[in-house]
Amino acid sequence: MSAPLQATIAALREALGDDRVRVGDEIGERSMTDWTRHAPARAAALLVPRSTQEVSRALAICHEAHQPVVPQGGMTGLAGGAIASATDIALSLEKLAGIEEIDTASATMTVLAGTTLQAAQEAAEAAGFELALDLGARGSCQIGGNLATNAGGNRVIQSGTAREQVLGIEAVLANGAVLSSMNKMIKNNTGYDLKQLFIGSEGTLGVITRAVLRLHPPRASRHTALVAVDGYDAAVALLRKLSARFGNDIGAFEIMWPDFFDFGVSLTPSARSPFEAEHPLYALIEHAGFDASDTGERFATFLADAFDANAVRDAIVAQSVSDARALWRIRECTAEFPARLDPVNFDVSLPIGSIGRFVDECRAALDARWPSNRTYYFGHIGDSNLHVTVDGHSVPRVSHHDVYAFVYDLIVPYHGSVSAEHGIGLLKREFLPLSRSPEEIAAMTAIKRALDPHGILNPGKLI
Amino acid sequence: MSAPLQATIAALREALGDDRVRVGDEIGERSMTDWTRHAPARAAALLVPRSTQEVSRALAICHEAHQPVVPQGGMTGLAGGAIASATDIALSLEKLAGIEEIDTASATMTVLAGTTLQAAQEAAEAAGFELALDLGARGSCQIGGNLATNAGGNRVIQSGTAREQVLGIEAVLANGAVLSSMNKMIKNNTGYDLKQLFIGSEGTLGVITRAVLRLHPPRASRHTALVAVDGYDAAVALLRKLSARFGNDIGAFEIMWPDFFDFGVSLTPSARSPFEAEHPLYALIEHAGFDASDTGERFATFLADAFDANAVRDAIVAQSVSDARALWRIRECTAEFPARLDPVNFDVSLPIGSIGRFVDECRAALDARWPSNRTYYFGHIGDSNLHVTVDGHSVPRVSHHDVYAFVYDLIVPYHGSVSAEHGIGLLKREFLPLSRSPEEIAAMTAIKRALDPHGILNPGKLI
Repeated sequence: MSAPLQATIAALREALGDDRVRVGDEIGERSMTDWTRHAPARAAALLVPRSTQEVSRALAICHEAHQPVVPQGGMTGLAGGAIASATDIALSLEKLAGIEEIDTASATMTVLAGTTLQAAQEAAEAAGFELALDLGARGSCQIGGNLATNAGGNRVIQSGTAREQVLGIEAVLANGAVLSSMNKMIKNNTGYDLKQLFIGSEGTLGVITRAVLRLHPPRASRHTALVAVDGYDAAVALLRKLSARFGNDIGAFEIMWPDFFDFGVSLTPSARSPFEAEHPLYALIEHAGFDASDTGERFATFLADAFDANAVRDAIVAQSVSDARALWRIRECTAEFPARLDPVNFDVSLPIGSIGRFVDECRAALDARWPSNRTYYFGHIGDSNLHVTVDGHSVPRVSHHDVYAFVYDLIVPYHGSVSAEHGIGLLKREFLPLSRSPEEIAAMTAIKRALDPHGILNPGKLI
Repeated sequence: MSAPLQATIAALREALGDDRVRVGDEIGERSMTDWTRHAPARAAALLVPRSTQEVSRALAICHEAHQPVVPQGGMTGLAGGAIASATDIALSLEKLAGIEEIDTASATMTVLAGTTLQAAQEAAEAAGFELALDLGARGSCQIGGNLATNAGGNRVIQSGTAREQVLGIEAVLANGAVLSSMNKMIKNNTGYDLKQLFIGSEGTLGVITRAVLRLHPPRASRHTALVAVDGYDAAVALLRKLSARFGNDIGAFEIMWPDFFDFGVSLTPSARSPFEAEHPLYALIEHAGFDASDTGERFATFLADAFDANAVRDAIVAQSVSDARALWRIRECTAEFPARLDPVNFDVSLPIGSIGRFVDECRAALDARWPSNRTYYFGHIGDSNLHVTVDGHSVPRVSHHDVYAFVYDLIVPYHGSVSAEHGIGLLKREFLPLSRSPEEIAAMTAIKRALDPHGILNPGKLI
């Protein structure tokens, strides 16, 4: 370890106390990489501050020393954005956890950044509300990381991404300045909306320490159906009709192309499709409304009318919670991907109307390039989000990187995005220019420089 | 006019053509001030570019010359944010108008900045959608101005402010760089969400030239009721119950304190309250859902149940469109304010739970300071937005400025905002530090300097 780095760590011990600074074996495996398992490394030191003031003091010291700092949440990221190298200092928010307040009149929650998403969800529920952010990593991921990466997840079609849940943020800038914009109001037009800068900036502009989140009333009824349609355009037409009829009571609209659907079905207990026939495209749809007495009849009638009008080829309406679970199991086969495939996962977004054409084109291009490829297409198309998973086993001797580069190139003509929700982090940095123009990257760089002139915050990530 | 300014105008004529540059009498009254009628002035020149490229060329020239530029939309602002002085060059977006595309699959509209809100609304409607932004100035205000000021208006409780309607923005930076982030996707996590910077920054960071707006399905049913409640806390409790039962089908929740209500009633044709008795507080509530067959029965039943449970003191449910109009007329007495009062208007926001206490405190403080004051309180409390109008006639020999300073000071302990929706502009600039901390203002200044190093964009406004 270099002498300046040693001196910085000594200064941090002095300022924060020894129990806030971990080194060597005191840094557990969990802090060494994220869910990608990419390049595990032990940071030079791991800071575990217990207050905003401690975060501020730590950053001021690192700023002075031009010392790189990598903010860390629950380490559940999928883009390597929180991985620290041996010359970085990692800063974990895990000890800055807890719900400070639930304001039932404002329908807001004030929460510390290190609180797990699940703890925040449970606190909201106990107060009679719902935190409209949910993702698979809920038990480990932290609110600070959710906001820093603008997490998406399961409820975007209904309630938007993490960004839409935020009313206020407190963040510590690179130089240690505490920027407290803990606004609770829905409307506030007093200058730049600074919180937006930190949401989705992956820890490169500041360390989020607290937030005010919006709460929603809980959905009181939930009805699920699996529908077969003629193709992608029919799926979009159905989505627009559902939306016109039920507004944002449509809680899921998950599209599965046949390869994906058949794979999902093959992993269910019966291994049999719930439909008699095969179909060009499948949609798993959820209606989630506020009327506890809703029997699902209006939703079922809508689908019956759609069937009569040939807008859907077939529809299975869940009659019970266990029916609904069985339908969801097909979609949730993705949980089996790591065990059964060598997954090369794409998390792209495209204009909704173009996704069908893109899938056709992507499939044809992959088949031409690597005829043996097995690829699965599925997506939250109401959110303009498509997932593509290429099974690396089906294209032996081809690096994941080459598959990424090949598919991302196909996105460009569609003005699509190389990351709908996972972010850029370390792993997609070289592909950022495929989605953002030189002028946009120059503007991001100018903002980065303005707020972090020594470039200490998460260097080498995102930009 | 100074020689450098003359040279800049000559360079602009050369670059854009004479028909894009107006001077002297060619600049109409309408470009000289906004709806506040504050300090009318004729700019040194008024530019009327017809393309993004022309805006870019104009700004590059002004940047080079360190020449202040004031972007102008429909001039309907209420904070003086678009007023140019005699040494400024004004840049109107009025000729950069039109709908470029409506994408029905994505439910988006691509629109030029100079398009009036009403034209955009009508185009959305013709395509079977609704643009969920509406305000009184719709016929004159322009989309670019709506976004630059993050306009609020009539539908915030249901659909959010202008910010929530935006998916993509094209803006020209001070140096003429065109920053095109014309994203159509709901989810896109590829770096900083630059569009957020321009929304609500009142033309100080860039000139918005185009935008991609979200469209929503139109509401198919609308039911209105006027309700009397025991007081502010009862109103909030009712709002939360309505929200739990109907989600965002609640399209309006307008609170009127008795002074305001009585004034509103006095201007209706009958001049009689629709209620038999007087009440502590009134709420005008609208249920606007997607079910065309909704007869309003569920809404009426909810109110009847609330009455039985003593959650409301009385309720009048409109039985027809003309009934609803009559109830709205009470709330819309504000249109008569300029004719009947010398209005000192406040557009503040506070945490929802505190608004009632603030009104009591504000009334007591005003009564103590200026016993003769007549003041009207009303608000969109679901949006945390309170309007206070002091009648200047009732406090003769008191300047509007003194009334502003007095009331804004009362907001501070509530962590409230001096502007919920109208913005800071020229008129509220001295009050900005009451709502934003020194650290926030420093961060805003750093961002301003990063994107507009010569400070040419709308100088003297906002910060």
